[in-house]
Amino acid sequence: MIKAYAAFEAKGELKPFEYDPGELQSNEVEIDVHYCGICHSDLSVIDSEWGQMQYPIVPGHEVVGKVASVGSGVSHLKVGQSVGLGWHAGYCNSCACCESGDNNLCAGAQPTIMGHHGGFADKVRAAENSVVAIPDGIDLALAGPLFCAGVTVFTPLLEFDIKAGDKVAVIGIGGLGHLALQFLNAWGCEVTAFTSSESKKQEALSLGAHHTLDSRNADEIDNAAASFDLIISTVNVKLDWGLYLNTLKPRGRLHFVGAVLEPLDINVFSLISAQRSVSGSAVGSPATIEKMLDFVVQHNIKAVVEPFSFENVNEAIARVRSGKTHYRVVLAK
Amino acid sequence: MIKAYAAFEAKGELKPFEYDPGELQSNEVEIDVHYCGICHSDLSVIDSEWGQMQYPIVPGHEVVGKVASVGSGVSHLKVGQSVGLGWHAGYCNSCACCESGDNNLCAGAQPTIMGHHGGFADKVRAAENSVVAIPDGIDLALAGPLFCAGVTVFTPLLEFDIKAGDKVAVIGIGGLGHLALQFLNAWGCEVTAFTSSESKKQEALSLGAHHTLDSRNADEIDNAAASFDLIISTVNVKLDWGLYLNTLKPRGRLHFVGAVLEPLDINVFSLISAQRSVSGSAVGSPATIEKMLDFVVQHNIKAVVEPFSFENVNEAIARVRSGKTHYRVVLAK
Repeated sequence: MIKAYAAFEAKGELKPFEYDPGELQSNEVEIDVHYCGICHSDLSVIDSEWGQMQYPIVPGHEVVGKVASVGSGVSHLKVGQSVGLGWHAGYCNSCACCESGDNNLCAGAQPTIMGHHGGFADKVRAAENSVVAIPDGIDLALAGPLFCAGVTVFTPLLEFDIKAGDKVAVIGIGGLGHLALQFLNAWGCEVTAFTSSESKKQEALSLGAHHTLDSRNADEIDNAAASFDLIISTVNVKLDWGLYLNTLKPRGRLHFVGAVLEPLDINVFSLISAQRSVSGSAVGSPATIEKMLDFVVQHNIKAVVEPFSFENVNEAIARVRSGKTHYRVVLAK
Repeated sequence: MIKAYAAFEAKGELKPFEYDPGELQSNEVEIDVHYCGICHSDLSVIDSEWGQMQYPIVPGHEVVGKVASVGSGVSHLKVGQSVGLGWHAGYCNSCACCESGDNNLCAGAQPTIMGHHGGFADKVRAAENSVVAIPDGIDLALAGPLFCAGVTVFTPLLEFDIKAGDKVAVIGIGGLGHLALQFLNAWGCEVTAFTSSESKKQEALSLGAHHTLDSRNADEIDNAAASFDLIISTVNVKLDWGLYLNTLKPRGRLHFVGAVLEPLDINVFSLISAQRSVSGSAVGSPATIEKMLDFVVQHNIKAVVEPFSFENVNEAIARVRSGKTHYRVVLAK
């Protein structure tokens, strides 16, 4: 039996929950969970914010632990190895996306916490190719957030061919944004953080931003017209997107990794006049996660975390709901 | 004196208008206008639809003719040579865009018909690097529409690295769309036309589409989920963009070359879930126009035009306003 914490209704408190995962499938890995980050999307799923969910839900998709056992067909992972598991716990393995290594874009991918039990548990299972080995040199206590927040902000750098010297801004300096600033600085970009408070401004600079702009000051944003090659928006609230679009250079891109529920009201002239793009992406492929982990080791990038014990999961969730986390809550065994 | 046709007020009839262009500048070319296409944006400018314009306005930015004279600094064009002039009649030549050959993205570019007199005239002047030589093998009577409509739909193929075999759809089979279908077919793409009428369906197939979809049939569009790498929208009316976004494959792009006045209400989940993009562009650089003209010769691509004499310019404009043109009205000397 796997001992987990589950929500039994929308917005419900998490309670102890045991389930029998059945026989380990040949392509599966069972992970002893040591750490699990809490992501805003765990809350969205607990709350049925993206549509009605099926309960019980075991959240947790920033899992770090050791391989406890492997199915008979698993060859690339060994018992005892340090591994991580993110948003996806399996893929169809036969669509065009999977065939070309873009497993994260597979329409049949299995989310770790919807229709599958996640990492707020002593153990979690996942398909072998969704489980990524963690290289030496990464502190496991800080590794969880890399598997969702980290890869979510790392993917656009690869996908959109961002180069050293490019001017990149980040909206929202939280769980995703604080990693984005570190990645972009190490990538050699000129990094700007849009922040809403004086205290966050100093923190953003210490995390790798070269400049900050006050996200509540329309004049200041106006003055930054045609400045950025890329803006990564990590927030899940509606902003004046036209104002931000205007800060993009010709061919610039406003890229959403935060799930804003309100439709984006985009002025098509702003796109046409300077050949701008608006786009979005979620997480990344297993290959991208591997690249990110190597980059993290090379540049000594560290998530900033607030640790909570698994027993205090509801307290930990309340802390995430408060919006005051610096910068990611991680449950620790 | 240059003899032109000008609008003297918003939505006004065009009337004869003479102006003195002054001394020919060293970097300027004077073109004897033989043909000039009429683009929907000529009407938008005449009508002050994009903001209040300064009158008189001499429309016309799909100019084809012969070089009448060249300034002392012009070396790449000779008197008597066949040339074309599109949306831009000059560039700043010193910004980062101009320096890298992206003159069409220059914020200081001079539109041919705003703050400058266009091609509904016996002559028109423009900066030498906005005037492009027309290679042998192109029928000058059909060449005008290439310089705005043509390059507008050709540019995305280069910019977004579209390849033979890619699946591309076109929304709106008019002045821009009928050239897009021909370009895409010759490019080796699998081409789909979204059309609203049975008669247009047959025409779209004859222009190069391999498939058609009824743009008024939501079920038919729904069934095309995850089909396209790129959709080029040439229309200037609001459609159900969410429906169209859904027809894009992962990493697909909905690209606007038609100036829709209403904001695009884009669902960010649709972007994030499949890493989709929404973007826009206008016309193209002089280098892109040259590439397009070579491609037109190679593949024997021809605009389909309805000719009118310059004297009947108001009748010609009325024809464009009717929305019934097959597919581009061209004024001929």
